[in-house]
Amino acid sequence: MRESVRDRLLAGYDGTADRDGVSGKRLADRLATLASIGETEDGGVNRPGFSAEEKLAKEQVMEWMREAGLGVRMDGAGNVIGRLEGKTDGPVFAAGSHVDSVPNGGNFDGPLGVLSALEMVEAWKETGYVPPVPVEVIIFSEEEGSRFGAGIMGSQAMTGDLGREALSVLSDANGNSFEEVINAYGTSMDAFLEVARDPKEIGFYAEIHIEQGKLLEQAGLPAGIVKGIAGPAWLNAIFRGTAGHAGNTPMIGRRDPLVAAGRFVHEVSSLPAQFSDTAVATVGKLNVSPNGANVIPEEIALTIDIRDLDKEARDDLVQKVRETAEHCAAEAGVEVELNLASSIDPVPVTDEVREELAQVFGQAGIRPMELMSGAGHDAMILGRHVPMAMIFVKSIGGISHNPAEWSDLDDCITAVHLLKRFAEKRMEKMAGK
Amino acid sequence: MRESVRDRLLAGYDGTADRDGVSGKRLADRLATLASIGETEDGGVNRPGFSAEEKLAKEQVMEWMREAGLGVRMDGAGNVIGRLEGKTDGPVFAAGSHVDSVPNGGNFDGPLGVLSALEMVEAWKETGYVPPVPVEVIIFSEEEGSRFGAGIMGSQAMTGDLGREALSVLSDANGNSFEEVINAYGTSMDAFLEVARDPKEIGFYAEIHIEQGKLLEQAGLPAGIVKGIAGPAWLNAIFRGTAGHAGNTPMIGRRDPLVAAGRFVHEVSSLPAQFSDTAVATVGKLNVSPNGANVIPEEIALTIDIRDLDKEARDDLVQKVRETAEHCAAEAGVEVELNLASSIDPVPVTDEVREELAQVFGQAGIRPMELMSGAGHDAMILGRHVPMAMIFVKSIGGISHNPAEWSDLDDCITAVHLLKRFAEKRMEKMAGK
Repeated sequence: MRESVRDRLLAGYDGTADRDGVSGKRLADRLATLASIGETEDGGVNRPGFSAEEKLAKEQVMEWMREAGLGVRMDGAGNVIGRLEGKTDGPVFAAGSHVDSVPNGGNFDGPLGVLSALEMVEAWKETGYVPPVPVEVIIFSEEEGSRFGAGIMGSQAMTGDLGREALSVLSDANGNSFEEVINAYGTSMDAFLEVARDPKEIGFYAEIHIEQGKLLEQAGLPAGIVKGIAGPAWLNAIFRGTAGHAGNTPMIGRRDPLVAAGRFVHEVSSLPAQFSDTAVATVGKLNVSPNGANVIPEEIALTIDIRDLDKEARDDLVQKVRETAEHCAAEAGVEVELNLASSIDPVPVTDEVREELAQVFGQAGIRPMELMSGAGHDAMILGRHVPMAMIFVKSIGGISHNPAEWSDLDDCITAVHLLKRFAEKRMEKMAGK
Repeated sequence: MRESVRDRLLAGYDGTADRDGVSGKRLADRLATLASIGETEDGGVNRPGFSAEEKLAKEQVMEWMREAGLGVRMDGAGNVIGRLEGKTDGPVFAAGSHVDSVPNGGNFDGPLGVLSALEMVEAWKETGYVPPVPVEVIIFSEEEGSRFGAGIMGSQAMTGDLGREALSVLSDANGNSFEEVINAYGTSMDAFLEVARDPKEIGFYAEIHIEQGKLLEQAGLPAGIVKGIAGPAWLNAIFRGTAGHAGNTPMIGRRDPLVAAGRFVHEVSSLPAQFSDTAVATVGKLNVSPNGANVIPEEIALTIDIRDLDKEARDDLVQKVRETAEHCAAEAGVEVELNLASSIDPVPVTDEVREELAQVFGQAGIRPMELMSGAGHDAMILGRHVPMAMIFVKSIGGISHNPAEWSDLDDCITAVHLLKRFAEKRMEKMAGK
């Protein structure tokens, strides 16, 4: 257990929210335990998808699931499913998130969703509540995309949205193919493709996640209702020029791809505002080859992450980014190859679910503020097939994908109570009461 | 011997340049023999400084030197000195280069300088010519810097430009200290520091080297006159901003250091032309942190390699690059830290030597084209202390530090004749005739 995380969580927690079987201490202990798996020097974690660290984190949660009396299995995509039987059989109420992280990521993005779903089940166990329908707590594999540049893989495997063709072109930074990695992880390509479930098995999916923005903090609210998830498009660009000695190659006639890519990154930052108020475009990953101080680069590989709530505006922005890359390459006399690695449609939350959530928030005395999610989540994948709800928890300073990522335990526990109340009401509807 | 190298060298050689004791076949055999020491799969060589392979290459050349009647010794820095006594004693005419290579380097960078100096001596031996002053053929140790990240070590040892303090902080990729490596090489730190010679012992230094650029090829010339060696300055820059989620962080208010660094790299490419025709500035190495596709970067570390023949213009350019970095950082709302990692003064070739070389070129019917050497060489170190000349040989495609590095044997032999004629005239001057 990472004592510093546990101590900081409990320092600001007075225990008054410990009721109806929910325990702040238990959630703090578990967040701190996951924080120690793949921990980095500056307080964050490295748990890439399908890494030993990610698997260790899953195995730890599986142990807790078994202790809570859940039936536990790992599917061929590495997704963990902890199942609590209900009074009746039929479509399940599922809730969860992921435990993989970006490089040197934070301790809440993912783990909070998994552990608060588990905390809900723990609370039911303590109070003797038996849900009217089966409940599943799910850990989805490789949500962040830090391993293959293609995230939300576990949830897509479960909904049958990933095919063999898409998987066969993936390789990680070490040049290992997806199949090699998944074999080493203890499963196989065939098993990965066989995990797709009939959407009718899942009646509802809910996810608690940190906001990763500052809107709740600015509004002074512990939690908020997600009204929809912006669809990200990932465009891969490779700028190719001619390598040469930095000292012996005159400036005139150079074909330096980093000059083109640099200009491109700068110009991209001013494009989203031309399309909508909510659109964003980011170059977060860029690799120079051969990357020697006295060698003119030969190749720059980078990814542009483009998102908006409005699909049409998003797609127009993607097109403008493409044109900008081609223009910057042409001006520097280099080539550019563009490839749309992924493009996901925005996913709205239904009015009915938003109204139910607003009611639960209101009963808890919390103003039901609605937010858009700019980040993709497993709920975005599930939400294409089944009704979906997301609750955001206040992020301190809006910081995420960073060791400084933080949410107060009080706010996390508030979200557990909101999810629990929402689930209880929703499951009654599902059971036909 | 590497037959493929020998065959390719001789395939394009008709033998008409074999005169005055110079032999194309001998030079081809020797280049091909060195090409087999530390050979790599794709036709290059791995001979890191102070490696077993580098030593083997030196021992092979020492054998040829003895066969040519030279007095041969290896000094405490591993430099090999093959001495031919002249008609008179006094300051020597030295010529040479190195036999170490970059990882998977080519077969000409270094060896050509050593073997053509030796070929000049072989020619004198065959024709019975006795030089008016002593001649030394020198192999300098560890020129490339691929072992300790600090090159031109043997030449600096000989000129007394390397102190114990600088050596004591060096270690190689395996974590071995310089002292451990030099001990294993069969010498010692003390012996290394004792090789410094009185500059007066050396009256002149000459070096043949491949151009590592395309200017001679473009001009259709076999060889050219180096007018000076540009002094490289390495400026390290770290742009620091605020990491955040690429989807949940609005464009307004971002502090993205890659937007600043990208603009900077692009702007740097247009700066050298403002200062001189020969100035160059290159960003070849750039690392993004944390480098995740959906994470706004926190830190960009890059190195700017800045060179010019004119020290004042070079330093003015460094200053302009600094200001540009600060401007780009300020405009993007991020910080930048700049640090001049190294700065070596340019070494010009004197007008007198350039005129002598131009005369020799003219007599051989070759247009005396002058070039700047953008790369550092052992001649850069020697040239700080004694008069120096460099002759560049045409590089096919300008390719260097790469197995595809190539120069035609005709051009290499032409350079041997030019060096030989120049040396004969220069030595007469040295002997006071």
